[in-house]
Amino acid sequence: MPRVFRKQVLVCTSEGEGKCASKGSLEVFQKFRDEVKARNLADIIVTKLGCTGQHPTGPTVVIHPDGLWYQRVTPDVVVEIIEQHLVGGKPVERLINPEMKVTG
Amino acid sequence: MPRVFRKQVLVCTSEGEGKCASKGSLEVFQKFRDEVKARNLADIIVTKLGCTGQHPTGPTVVIHPDGLWYQRVTPDVVVEIIEQHLVGGKPVERLINPEMKVTG
Repeated sequence: MPRVFRKQVLVCTSEGEGKCASKGSLEVFQKFRDEVKARNLADIIVTKLGCTGQHPTGPTVVIHPDGLWYQRVTPDVVVEIIEQHLVGGKPVERLINPEMKVTG
Repeated sequence: MPRVFRKQVLVCTSEGEGKCASKGSLEVFQKFRDEVKARNLADIIVTKLGCTGQHPTGPTVVIHPDGLWYQRVTPDVVVEIIEQHLVGGKPVERLINPEMKVTG
């Protein structure tokens, strides 16, 4: 039985000086995992991501298939992204990184 | 000036016994980077990915926004994936992992 997801949430956990892990992204990753599980959102997969070069505005979170980059993601905005974007379908515009996009 | 990509290639480089890095995925990652650069495919971004649980059939490569998982990816099939799928638009069906998909 294949696992079919609606969204993949990619949290940059790249290590090194000034990279996302040094800015608390591991806590962001864990919070996404915990809050997605708490809501039984089985159609959302949360995965770690390597560096996309956006750590100056990190922690970085990328959501596909939307192809959107979020910037400066802290644990306290994770629930807002889940409820407004992943469940509600409306990206949280004020947190979008305008520099990067995958359009397909 | 925003960077707008057509595709994001995510190569699992997860470490640990039996995980993708132990199966040569770092070479796959580097080959994707090198071959994409050699072709001046500036609309393709190649990034490292964390574990999605598919290492039994790894190395794993995920391509978005298509939401497709490739399995058992070795350096010698990288050019085929680039030319047939990323440039030509036709996924390499024999390498697709049927267990995982992001549909959007």
